[in-house]
Amino acid sequence: MNDQLIIFDTTLRDGEQSPGASMTRDEKLRIARQLERMKVNVIEAGFAAASNGDFEAVHAVAEAIKDSTVCSLARANENDIRRAGEAIRPAASGRIHTFIATSPIHMEKKLRMSPDQVVEQAVRAIGWAREYTGDVEFSAEDAGRSEIDFLCRIFEAVINAGATTINVPDTVGYNVPEQFAETIRTLIERVPNSDKVVWSVHCHNDLGLAVANSLAAVRAGARQVECTVNGLGERAGNASLEEIVMAVRTRKDVFQCDTRIDTTQIVPASKLVSGITGFPVQPNKAIVGANAFAHESGIHQDGVLKHRETYEIMRAEDVGWTTNKLVMGKHSGRNAFRSRLIELGVEIKSEEQLNHAFARFKELADKKHEIFDEDLQALMSDESSEPQEHFRLVASSFHSETGETPNARLTLSVGGKEAKVESNGSGPVDAAFKAIEAVAESGAQLLLYSVNAITTGTDAQGEVTVRLSKEDRVVNGQGADTDIIVASAKAYLNALNKLHSKLERLNPQV
Amino acid sequence: MNDQLIIFDTTLRDGEQSPGASMTRDEKLRIARQLERMKVNVIEAGFAAASNGDFEAVHAVAEAIKDSTVCSLARANENDIRRAGEAIRPAASGRIHTFIATSPIHMEKKLRMSPDQVVEQAVRAIGWAREYTGDVEFSAEDAGRSEIDFLCRIFEAVINAGATTINVPDTVGYNVPEQFAETIRTLIERVPNSDKVVWSVHCHNDLGLAVANSLAAVRAGARQVECTVNGLGERAGNASLEEIVMAVRTRKDVFQCDTRIDTTQIVPASKLVSGITGFPVQPNKAIVGANAFAHESGIHQDGVLKHRETYEIMRAEDVGWTTNKLVMGKHSGRNAFRSRLIELGVEIKSEEQLNHAFARFKELADKKHEIFDEDLQALMSDESSEPQEHFRLVASSFHSETGETPNARLTLSVGGKEAKVESNGSGPVDAAFKAIEAVAESGAQLLLYSVNAITTGTDAQGEVTVRLSKEDRVVNGQGADTDIIVASAKAYLNALNKLHSKLERLNPQV
Repeated sequence: MNDQLIIFDTTLRDGEQSPGASMTRDEKLRIARQLERMKVNVIEAGFAAASNGDFEAVHAVAEAIKDSTVCSLARANENDIRRAGEAIRPAASGRIHTFIATSPIHMEKKLRMSPDQVVEQAVRAIGWAREYTGDVEFSAEDAGRSEIDFLCRIFEAVINAGATTINVPDTVGYNVPEQFAETIRTLIERVPNSDKVVWSVHCHNDLGLAVANSLAAVRAGARQVECTVNGLGERAGNASLEEIVMAVRTRKDVFQCDTRIDTTQIVPASKLVSGITGFPVQPNKAIVGANAFAHESGIHQDGVLKHRETYEIMRAEDVGWTTNKLVMGKHSGRNAFRSRLIELGVEIKSEEQLNHAFARFKELADKKHEIFDEDLQALMSDESSEPQEHFRLVASSFHSETGETPNARLTLSVGGKEAKVESNGSGPVDAAFKAIEAVAESGAQLLLYSVNAITTGTDAQGEVTVRLSKEDRVVNGQGADTDIIVASAKAYLNALNKLHSKLERLNPQV
Repeated sequence: MNDQLIIFDTTLRDGEQSPGASMTRDEKLRIARQLERMKVNVIEAGFAAASNGDFEAVHAVAEAIKDSTVCSLARANENDIRRAGEAIRPAASGRIHTFIATSPIHMEKKLRMSPDQVVEQAVRAIGWAREYTGDVEFSAEDAGRSEIDFLCRIFEAVINAGATTINVPDTVGYNVPEQFAETIRTLIERVPNSDKVVWSVHCHNDLGLAVANSLAAVRAGARQVECTVNGLGERAGNASLEEIVMAVRTRKDVFQCDTRIDTTQIVPASKLVSGITGFPVQPNKAIVGANAFAHESGIHQDGVLKHRETYEIMRAEDVGWTTNKLVMGKHSGRNAFRSRLIELGVEIKSEEQLNHAFARFKELADKKHEIFDEDLQALMSDESSEPQEHFRLVASSFHSETGETPNARLTLSVGGKEAKVESNGSGPVDAAFKAIEAVAESGAQLLLYSVNAITTGTDAQGEVTVRLSKEDRVVNGQGADTDIIVASAKAYLNALNKLHSKLERLNPQV
């Protein structure tokens, strides 16, 4: 049995489907570069047929990434597959991942197709895909609730048609490990030519078992796991890449296989995804939580001191936990700034952009003594979103005092024109949001407001996430500044800009 | 085989051991009452011998709780067990949980005892415990890395000595499900009189497998699971109570048992624990994450519309997800306020406290149109910590403006005396913290700063968490206010107050 476990990352596709986690093309590119650096085997970059924006994003990732296979999802119809095929055309190594539902409930209620029609459609889909690439993955949507005989039948048919990876998703997170492993074992035993393809699993975490189900499948012979950084994904998310990779590596004795992942890139990837999506990682999250390697207990610390192995099964440095690196200060030059950005995987599009960013770096360095990598990332996130900005903060003044009503006075640029506005509120953030709404009149609802300090220390920048909803659309806006009220106003404006650049899209469910 | 699965909650003991999650006696009481309301079978309230504060907390929980068994942890020595026995004396139903390490590495490097000595000590411990209660639990620390023959030997001995529950912890989170289940199965088969006791497991989440390992053990015959709300706990935490309970309930077909948990109390418990500890729950956390029941995908929503079961295996209302309940406004009276507090499980100690809280409620209602349960919880958290306050915010004034340095002017009460102080900073929060430090001179390091809106809407209160460290101690401070800068100052002062009330303690590792 092959001892390489293929890591298929779907942060940019299934992860991005989390309500509020949508990403711009540039954000996707930054994450894709980090995934490549981590040595992920396959990057599912999106669902090309969902919208023009999705097509562009998959195409851009396919152009940029050399070391990982770049994949697009496609429903089992001709249009979806041709869009996927076009999108991955620039890739050094490209894959099309096509899917159709196979559970009785889905075939009957959603597809309204007979089992025979579903098999026929799947086979046709593989044919279309093979016009673009020899690397074709087939998924049976809701396989976890499909009949095993039907799964065997459709998998046999698509393997004969040329599918090279067969994926078994537990779409609604209903399976438990022993049973899921049994399904995989049975499929591998019963499907003719099962040794000619890679068996893959895609698990959801509704009962908290996505990682366990994936690992049970690996023991049963699966050699690809579909997962996301931080377990991002709809509802309770997908299997966590970091947990899968570290379980397999830490317990090679049990799993008898390993990945090619550079585990020291795990924590940087986690921070990047969390920063871009605004989805925090809870402190007690395995591997990438802030406490994952922190110890409180007195008895325990004693144990650690006496003998390191007593309580450690992994080392923090192996997964990329290092203290914040001091990289820059107010005396750092333009070349040092540029090199550090390149090391961080930030794309510099023009000299003009670099000059602008460097000017803002100098401003920040005036306010903040030490500039960390995280500060640069935040600065560049701000920077890269600038061209499309409809709303922009020009200047602000805030005042709050015990016994008085907090007040905000803002100067905003709206579609290039300046507007001055003032409002009171229950706090300065409320006052700022009300002032912005007095001009923008978006009518959006504020669903979430959260702040995290980007680094430690009292002069850290606050990174604010604002989640707005309007007519079924949910967007996250981010803003960073050493002044939390300014960061809040920026985040609110960023969210409004995303709502402003309306894009229609469709998200599939695998 | 018994079809009841006993839920043993250790949020107040192992959960509290997370760096930064320490709780006051009153906070523990509020959580204990919520656990009782949720119908948890056993509440591990603390480790009575760790400190006087811990003893008091266990004692207070034992006095307050009637429907759940109240348990104290104790090392296998006479002093620990007598302290535990005294602490649980008022309980309607009390348990002592004693433990000793059984893995070669722990016995040799930490205990420096021979296996014979360890067995002898364990048996003596059960004897001491039985002087106080007939309900005695024994844990083999680091059982996951212990030799099976030795486990059989020590378990046989403690069962003969009168232990009624045998707990098998995976202390360092090293096990994988199939293997852990095999351990439990073997123990139940081989240990004489295994049918006379309840078999229990206690799993840690370092590889993301705590829930899966616990559930595998349940299938192998374990009938108690030790777990925490939100999976709180050291490092990557313990098994999540909510995931265990919902997996067993949703898949009764597989697990052949159920709990007595009132699942509609799960989300309120999650919010209470998260609010008190300042540990956020990530949006993609199973069951209790904000997105756990939220759907984005277009295809998917279509599926939901066509047939509810296509994508739902649980219902949000079954686990207590309801929209914020509007309970109060500025016209609400004192009686309505008091009744709602009682319904929320808040203890009202005196008329004076009630009057003070009601006055602050009126102040809040002036600033904020709608007062939700979460606002009341935050108000009372503030309130209950007041008597011990060394540092208190009397009045404040903040100003920030583009092109100027942000400024804070504060009036603080320090040990009863008023002090006025002013500072600039990189932002208004930094200015406020610097102003406070100018008076307090704590020298503490700021490890974490985060803000969450307590409810939705722009006039929501911000709840700020500040984590400070000083000489190996880590404390969380919280503050809530509609003004985020005021909330930040309160949180910083709250953390300083916790550092001020220095308490020595010891945390065990099970």
